[in-house]
Amino acid sequence: MSGNSIGKLFTVTSFGESHGLAIGCIVDGCPPGLPLSEEDLQGDLDRRRPGTSRHTTQRREPDQVKILSGVFEGVTTGAPIGLMIENADQRSKDYAKIATQFRPGHADYTYFKKYGLRDYRGGGRSSARETAMRVAAGGIAKKYLQAQYGVLVRGYLAQLGPVRIDKVDWSVVNTNPFFCPDANRVPELEAYMDGLRKEGDSIGARVNVEATGLPAGWGEPIFDRLDADIAAAMMSINAVKAVEIGDGFAVVEQKGTQHRDEMTPEGFLSNHAGGVLGGISSGQDIRVSIALKPTSSIRLPGRSLNEAGESVEVITTGRHDPCVGIRATPIAEAMLAIVLMDHALRHRGQNGMDASG
Amino acid sequence: MSGNSIGKLFTVTSFGESHGLAIGCIVDGCPPGLPLSEEDLQGDLDRRRPGTSRHTTQRREPDQVKILSGVFEGVTTGAPIGLMIENADQRSKDYAKIATQFRPGHADYTYFKKYGLRDYRGGGRSSARETAMRVAAGGIAKKYLQAQYGVLVRGYLAQLGPVRIDKVDWSVVNTNPFFCPDANRVPELEAYMDGLRKEGDSIGARVNVEATGLPAGWGEPIFDRLDADIAAAMMSINAVKAVEIGDGFAVVEQKGTQHRDEMTPEGFLSNHAGGVLGGISSGQDIRVSIALKPTSSIRLPGRSLNEAGESVEVITTGRHDPCVGIRATPIAEAMLAIVLMDHALRHRGQNGMDASG
Amino acid sequence: MSGNSIGKLFTVTSFGESHGLAIGCIVDGCPPGLPLSEEDLQGDLDRRRPGTSRHTTQRREPDQVKILSGVFEGVTTGAPIGLMIENADQRSKDYAKIATQFRPGHADYTYFKKYGLRDYRGGGRSSARETAMRVAAGGIAKKYLQAQYGVLVRGYLAQLGPVRIDKVDWSVVNTNPFFCPDANRVPELEAYMDGLRKEGDSIGARVNVEATGLPAGWGEPIFDRLDADIAAAMMSINAVKAVEIGDGFAVVEQKGTQHRDEMTPEGFLSNHAGGVLGGISSGQDIRVSIALKPTSSIRLPGRSLNEAGESVEVITTGRHDPCVGIRATPIAEAMLAIVLMDHALRHRGQNGMDASG
Amino acid sequence: MSGNSIGKLFTVTSFGESHGLAIGCIVDGCPPGLPLSEEDLQGDLDRRRPGTSRHTTQRREPDQVKILSGVFEGVTTGAPIGLMIENADQRSKDYAKIATQFRPGHADYTYFKKYGLRDYRGGGRSSARETAMRVAAGGIAKKYLQAQYGVLVRGYLAQLGPVRIDKVDWSVVNTNPFFCPDANRVPELEAYMDGLRKEGDSIGARVNVEATGLPAGWGEPIFDRLDADIAAAMMSINAVKAVEIGDGFAVVEQKGTQHRDEMTPEGFLSNHAGGVLGGISSGQDIRVSIALKPTSSIRLPGRSLNEAGESVEVITTGRHDPCVGIRATPIAEAMLAIVLMDHALRHRGQNGMDASG
Repeated sequence: MSGNSIGKLFTVTSFGESHGLAIGCIVDGCPPGLPLSEEDLQGDLDRRRPGTSRHTTQRREPDQVKILSGVFEGVTTGAPIGLMIENADQRSKDYAKIATQFRPGHADYTYFKKYGLRDYRGGGRSSARETAMRVAAGGIAKKYLQAQYGVLVRGYLAQLGPVRIDKVDWSVVNTNPFFCPDANRVPELEAYMDGLRKEGDSIGARVNVEATGLPAGWGEPIFDRLDADIAAAMMSINAVKAVEIGDGFAVVEQKGTQHRDEMTPEGFLSNHAGGVLGGISSGQDIRVSIALKPTSSIRLPGRSLNEAGESVEVITTGRHDPCVGIRATPIAEAMLAIVLMDHALRHRGQNGMDASG
Repeated sequence: MSGNSIGKLFTVTSFGESHGLAIGCIVDGCPPGLPLSEEDLQGDLDRRRPGTSRHTTQRREPDQVKILSGVFEGVTTGAPIGLMIENADQRSKDYAKIATQFRPGHADYTYFKKYGLRDYRGGGRSSARETAMRVAAGGIAKKYLQAQYGVLVRGYLAQLGPVRIDKVDWSVVNTNPFFCPDANRVPELEAYMDGLRKEGDSIGARVNVEATGLPAGWGEPIFDRLDADIAAAMMSINAVKAVEIGDGFAVVEQKGTQHRDEMTPEGFLSNHAGGVLGGISSGQDIRVSIALKPTSSIRLPGRSLNEAGESVEVITTGRHDPCVGIRATPIAEAMLAIVLMDHALRHRGQNGMDASG
Repeated sequence: MSGNSIGKLFTVTSFGESHGLAIGCIVDGCPPGLPLSEEDLQGDLDRRRPGTSRHTTQRREPDQVKILSGVFEGVTTGAPIGLMIENADQRSKDYAKIATQFRPGHADYTYFKKYGLRDYRGGGRSSARETAMRVAAGGIAKKYLQAQYGVLVRGYLAQLGPVRIDKVDWSVVNTNPFFCPDANRVPELEAYMDGLRKEGDSIGARVNVEATGLPAGWGEPIFDRLDADIAAAMMSINAVKAVEIGDGFAVVEQKGTQHRDEMTPEGFLSNHAGGVLGGISSGQDIRVSIALKPTSSIRLPGRSLNEAGESVEVITTGRHDPCVGIRATPIAEAMLAIVLMDHALRHRGQNGMDASG
Repeated sequence: MSGNSIGKLFTVTSFGESHGLAIGCIVDGCPPGLPLSEEDLQGDLDRRRPGTSRHTTQRREPDQVKILSGVFEGVTTGAPIGLMIENADQRSKDYAKIATQFRPGHADYTYFKKYGLRDYRGGGRSSARETAMRVAAGGIAKKYLQAQYGVLVRGYLAQLGPVRIDKVDWSVVNTNPFFCPDANRVPELEAYMDGLRKEGDSIGARVNVEATGLPAGWGEPIFDRLDADIAAAMMSINAVKAVEIGDGFAVVEQKGTQHRDEMTPEGFLSNHAGGVLGGISSGQDIRVSIALKPTSSIRLPGRSLNEAGESVEVITTGRHDPCVGIRATPIAEAMLAIVLMDHALRHRGQNGMDASG
């Protein structure tokens, strides 16, 4: 199928540009009988919403999601769920000046090369704006996974530029604008971001997400492995350049005796694998880590080209996140939830003899 | 579709277990008119083949591929290409003793949990044996990409345990059993592997692959991004735990001014992005790096369970690669080629008005 | 993927119920550069729109389509096209009385059995209301096929109950509410429908659609044959119970000498095949014929069950088409156009060596 | 995906030409634990096999199927099932003389136009030879449906040219080479076929297939409706030009009071719908009827073109079925079984909350 759908049985198909009338998606394949309301989705949308702190873009978007179909008398019906968010704050004039210039490090150049034209307003389709719909769709998956399997999906900021966060206290993650799991490090993050903003530069980040409580058995080898689908879902997020499952790159220097997770009747003795063995969930926590690049939309001048192929100096004004990683946590959670729900349904459909009909 | 197919327009569907009669695949969607013979595929199969040096499993497999269909008078016809390799050396008795035990770190446990039963002979479907078909199918993609677009896909061993290889001399990669790009380091690798074999342990590795010469414009945002599909393809390889595109995790500590690849009329001034911007190829080299875990099939005892859930001590005899990363280079090349070919066809089909019919 | 998408490269994903807030779809895979406006789609929507004559349901729906994304400065960008129609006239009270009853011949029973619950308002998802989005999406395909290949897709009412229309004058098809291609028979159709309405009964119909001007070569055997995809698309239309390509069921009594379409340098001497040979377009006109059942929503009482499984007598009031076939012509045209466009793109992507990149 | 796969969760991917080394397929998505052996598949293959009576092609093919993977210790493992049949009798010389000619009514012309070249030996990929793999794959689906749901899939010849068979005695269907359900009409069929063979002409046929015992609830509206997928599967069979579900084209002249299947606590009072309402199975028998055209491979001369576009007179010698409909019954049964099994799995995966994990 085309490129704007993800999932085989639980399928999310997305549309919308940064400065169009609206963004939206169709969530197809959600089983019937799941209690669902807009409030269920608004929470994560508010976590991702821009303009909530001085450390993210000042674009003001209420990001009020509307459920247009698929829910009747408070529960899902099995019909596709249409979701929509109207774009409120579209200051297109901000972009007029770079309408024919390619911001270095941006998708401007590749979209133009691919399609022969582009919607330059705020990056059009390549804008992180579309991630709002991922979060909305992911909210449905999160609720289903919780209700049906007791699976909890959550994440946090693990590193912002030079600042590594090693202590993880889940209770504080949502109490600060960074999704930082160590309250004591928040002032440090704020100071770093304030300095960065003065510089006019941007910075990369690392986000960790995990899922706990899922059963063993999810994942469809050899190509639709659970870890392969997680990798694709994560890499499909704007600015993500790397994905790790479990120990990730650390395995390069590990020996078998050290890496293999031994088992006893009481369970696994370690989780180097990150909850996936042979592409199938082991029942341990799914551990995923991703790297997000620094946004290229900065006000420091950069050498680039215009559509005519001539040299230009590009300065990006407008409103941008100096660290796209800050708002990435709910997005990464959503993508993990979407993949897990798809595989939950696929496992139910494909595996085991079952006379239930 | 089910889990053993990859690709949308160029689709590879695989079958076969480690100790079954044969392994094979169907390559569907290869355009007609491509000159193709078994010799075209045998080269990479021989590079991947086990038993070629003392550093890999001593299982002896000629891995002679047969083209069963889709080629007529020396060229592809547009019909699906059936490929098959008969399994020659199947010492199933090696596995009888672990028929009811789960090797720690292996897919034994998850396959049993998922399917309720498993083919324990050599890991059955979860064996790296299936990667031979990936290499065969990838050979078709490599030839097409070269013939049609002048795209070259190649890779090398970047690190083996503690041994990092920094110098890359493409001319020596295929002159040693490690695909090591620095001839001077080969003795060091041999010494390390000899020591490891004496210990009875195994080790992880890092493999880098790249594609040069491809045009800008391949990739279908927002979900079927080129980098997302590459990540999935790489993570679908046995033992892979992490994937990087371009600078990968290094971006976490990079600033925007440092990461963004500036452009001049002469071209890009750097390639931190690894040839992908916004999920679409930029025309620069595609740079991918993957981490492979140490195999868990080692003869040092490990605590585990049997199918009854009782504690057992598992010792894996049989023939295994102490470093699966050693033979991974041609496999990673194949997966990259398969993804690129699929996107080449998708781009042709989906983009741009074209009156050619 | 899930069940509300059709097409591989040109993909239409639909949502919306009869009495929800809105119906909509996402059209993914439309090449960039196609001039497109809401006016382009409104024409066919108006042809399908209810309440335009006394012979169709009196539900009043303006069916004004909104393009929410994918079009910038008047042309498609290659991004997914979001389409939406708000539901205006939702007299749900009409349905309250049959909320727990299954209308015989309806999807009420099967939706309830499948999902365990149902949106009973106007048939919910099973309502023909969703066909409005097929027509909107089909409008994009029609415009593309015309602009890119000069392909014309059109249809007409071939039979309504006992009234067979044999003469085909394309110039009159859109001059009457029946899409009848013979102006002289329109009074007969009106008289028949008036009588039927008095009876309170409904009737079946046959609709023919064709495509002219397409090149030879579209269709992907052996399963994604052009005729197979056309059959699925037609059978997916509410109330359709049969599909013919070319001579259809007449071939049962034909001999090979009579059926085979002979060729001369001037072209084919006949078109019994209906433009498809071996699942691939021959360049002749595509000829398709479908049968639509009489709607089961009639005011004459019928024996049925309620959700408790008890006998009930069902009388359907509310507003219904006594002959769903009357408004089916633009819907069948839309589905044919969607399938043809998908195969046009697939053929471009999958076949023939092509250095264009 | 490409064109040689069918099914979403139960996926069959096929390869092979009439005169290649072998034909085969991969059956992906069969649940584990199904007892399966080659004998289970051989029965239907023998029913389809050519050369079993003087009324079908005299090509001699043992059609011995080999299971290459996916079955261990007598039961399916959940891994893909590789199936292969070696081509034994390949008299390619028969075809040399028409290597550059297009047989009228054949796929020769469209394959050449589509791919720019073709495997002319016996029609290559467009040969009915590939249907053997459909029958083998369908055998797995038949066994699963029977074991898991008690669903029985069966069919018969309903009409051969002018000879209509109205009486259906299932016990005699497999006692004659025509799959004729009325033993008394067999002599008539033999006489007709003998006369036809003398003439050197061919004839069309109608085949009916049905499925009994399936539960209500299978089918995924609005596009992946059960009837839509059945229509595609049937139309994908060589020579099929029309498909009916339930009363099919007869509904054109039916009134709602007559067509709607009324329900009582004892069940439905009729089955005009053919077991599908709103694209979902109703629990009644699935009734399907298809039309097969007369083969164009006849020895009576026909006007056609050669690859150079010049007029030629084509006479098809070689070995052909004067009525392809005769051997079509097991093929149509197989396709129906494949679609039903796919939907059985999809329904299990997608619908209803289920805590089983």
